[in-house]
Amino acid sequence: MQSRDQNRAWVLAQRPVGEPDDDTLRLETRPMPQAGAGEMLLRTEWLSIDPYMRGRMNDAKSYAEPVPIGGVMTGQVVAEVVTSGVDGYAPGDRVLALSGWQDWAVSDGTGVMRLPKGLERPAWALGILGMPGLTAHAGLAYIGEPKAGETLVVSAATGPVGATVGQIARLRGCRVVGVAGGPEKCRHAVEVQGFDTCIDHRAEDFEAELRAACPDGVDVYWDNTGARPLYAVLPLLNPFARVPVCGVAGWYNLQSLPEGPDRGPQIMATILRMKVKMQGFIVYDSFPPSAYDAFLAEMTGWLADGSVHYTEQVVEGLEAAPHALRDVLAGRNFGKVAVRVG
Amino acid sequence: MQSRDQNRAWVLAQRPVGEPDDDTLRLETRPMPQAGAGEMLLRTEWLSIDPYMRGRMNDAKSYAEPVPIGGVMTGQVVAEVVTSGVDGYAPGDRVLALSGWQDWAVSDGTGVMRLPKGLERPAWALGILGMPGLTAHAGLAYIGEPKAGETLVVSAATGPVGATVGQIARLRGCRVVGVAGGPEKCRHAVEVQGFDTCIDHRAEDFEAELRAACPDGVDVYWDNTGARPLYAVLPLLNPFARVPVCGVAGWYNLQSLPEGPDRGPQIMATILRMKVKMQGFIVYDSFPPSAYDAFLAEMTGWLADGSVHYTEQVVEGLEAAPHALRDVLAGRNFGKVAVRVG
Repeated sequence: MQSRDQNRAWVLAQRPVGEPDDDTLRLETRPMPQAGAGEMLLRTEWLSIDPYMRGRMNDAKSYAEPVPIGGVMTGQVVAEVVTSGVDGYAPGDRVLALSGWQDWAVSDGTGVMRLPKGLERPAWALGILGMPGLTAHAGLAYIGEPKAGETLVVSAATGPVGATVGQIARLRGCRVVGVAGGPEKCRHAVEVQGFDTCIDHRAEDFEAELRAACPDGVDVYWDNTGARPLYAVLPLLNPFARVPVCGVAGWYNLQSLPEGPDRGPQIMATILRMKVKMQGFIVYDSFPPSAYDAFLAEMTGWLADGSVHYTEQVVEGLEAAPHALRDVLAGRNFGKVAVRVG
Repeated sequence: MQSRDQNRAWVLAQRPVGEPDDDTLRLETRPMPQAGAGEMLLRTEWLSIDPYMRGRMNDAKSYAEPVPIGGVMTGQVVAEVVTSGVDGYAPGDRVLALSGWQDWAVSDGTGVMRLPKGLERPAWALGILGMPGLTAHAGLAYIGEPKAGETLVVSAATGPVGATVGQIARLRGCRVVGVAGGPEKCRHAVEVQGFDTCIDHRAEDFEAELRAACPDGVDVYWDNTGARPLYAVLPLLNPFARVPVCGVAGWYNLQSLPEGPDRGPQIMATILRMKVKMQGFIVYDSFPPSAYDAFLAEMTGWLADGSVHYTEQVVEGLEAAPHALRDVLAGRNFGKVAVRVG
């Protein structure tokens, strides 16, 4: 339970090999942090759980610094400003911050964003109205460029990014084929998210089913996973297909390169012959600031009129966060996972 | 020898498995083709030999139709118009045509382009002033986007495309690192083409040498080969690197996917983490028509003032064309290979 006397924090105890386990993270109880001059004290309300967190546990060259051993796990939170020495922020304000897996944090305002007053669902700022939603919207606007009549395939189709990608593409006039793990998720993608169809990548004849679901080939493949979904899509790509590369969730737990055959030649020959554009991106530094305004304007409208459906899974208590992350990495979650911290 | 009584033509006898051999192509002697109304008779002067020809021998989905069994091998030629029933073309005109590996051809003008009168080196229209030159220039302008101070790596560095890519990038202010097969080619890249350095991909410690040659990482990797050069560059790519995918020459003769490990996860994770843009393209349909004018204007200037050096290897006689192609596919050529047909 969050208390006003101490600060619980999940720190990285050791770098995991493969899947994180009980020894990966350690819950420490620390004294309350003290806000100095020019700082504010933040009380965590909601913590976002995202697949990228697995990558930060590695000591590898990447787009962001790894979490140091003994450091507080990285994460985006919705927080309440409790005391403020930062211009423009007052107690009672609600903010988005990158203060990580802990009850309390001190900030000088760097990387903090104010949320509007009176938000009905503040945790949505971690999902459909936050980073995953913006990722989907801007990644499509700047890389995927779906056009009416085209076929878009998206893996991790019921995850917070995948669900949004598919729904936006439907609104743009595409045929949308989801790829997800298991029949329950596939049903959800079709019945709740309104996808044209969704194929179970755990099925034995997955490749044949996906091909049958894409009679006109694939114009946009939004890759959240790599792995089997990627390899099944490659032979279906049409000339000038676009492949926004948003995640490699199917490979996050790899300890070394998997056994062969080497698919490198297939990937590169497909890019060459089909004139494919494959592009990786990070929502915070790959798009102009105007992308955020365009996203918010369209998405709030779509949510208000019911054009976009959002599935959120609430996990109770900071203590449950490591388990929630392991579920997300194993694909056991359903939609966006947010931890209610306090 | 080219004669005026008959037409020699190389036809595809059977689809090769791996490297083409003596049974792949067959030289047929046919009657002279007759130009009907609205057609012109073309006499082949020069035939271009290019790595893409190996791909056309396969019966696979690609950017172009495969050559049918018994069909004349595809190829770009410089030809003389001998008789003309096509508006705008007169006997004595010199043209670029896609009439393939034969002495004579009939054309209705489709895909034919007139060359200027009095060209000093007409075969250059197959190379530095033709498709390979335009490929290099437009691929850099629209995908590679080299900027002053950046590092560009190019594989097949002494091939007609690679040599031009590197020289243009030098003119744009880049540090240019070539990758080529053997010390002789590497010396040529530095001494004749003016590259900053060139690394032999057949050397045992190739990966370490390439890393040492790129102390600031790699901002543009022009991939003509895939294979070992690609895999050595992946760990060196900088954030927002661009990878124009122009060829997979290192894999053309693959009969099936090579043994593992599977490098797919490494390719995709690099694209994701480094926000890489990888893009395949075909010079004829990936760029606007203005790309050609921009290319010709710059390139003719660079050739005239000596800023760009062009290496051409002339092969004598249509009968030698299959051997020339096998040399190109094995990397035994030096610069652009053009067959003098008549």
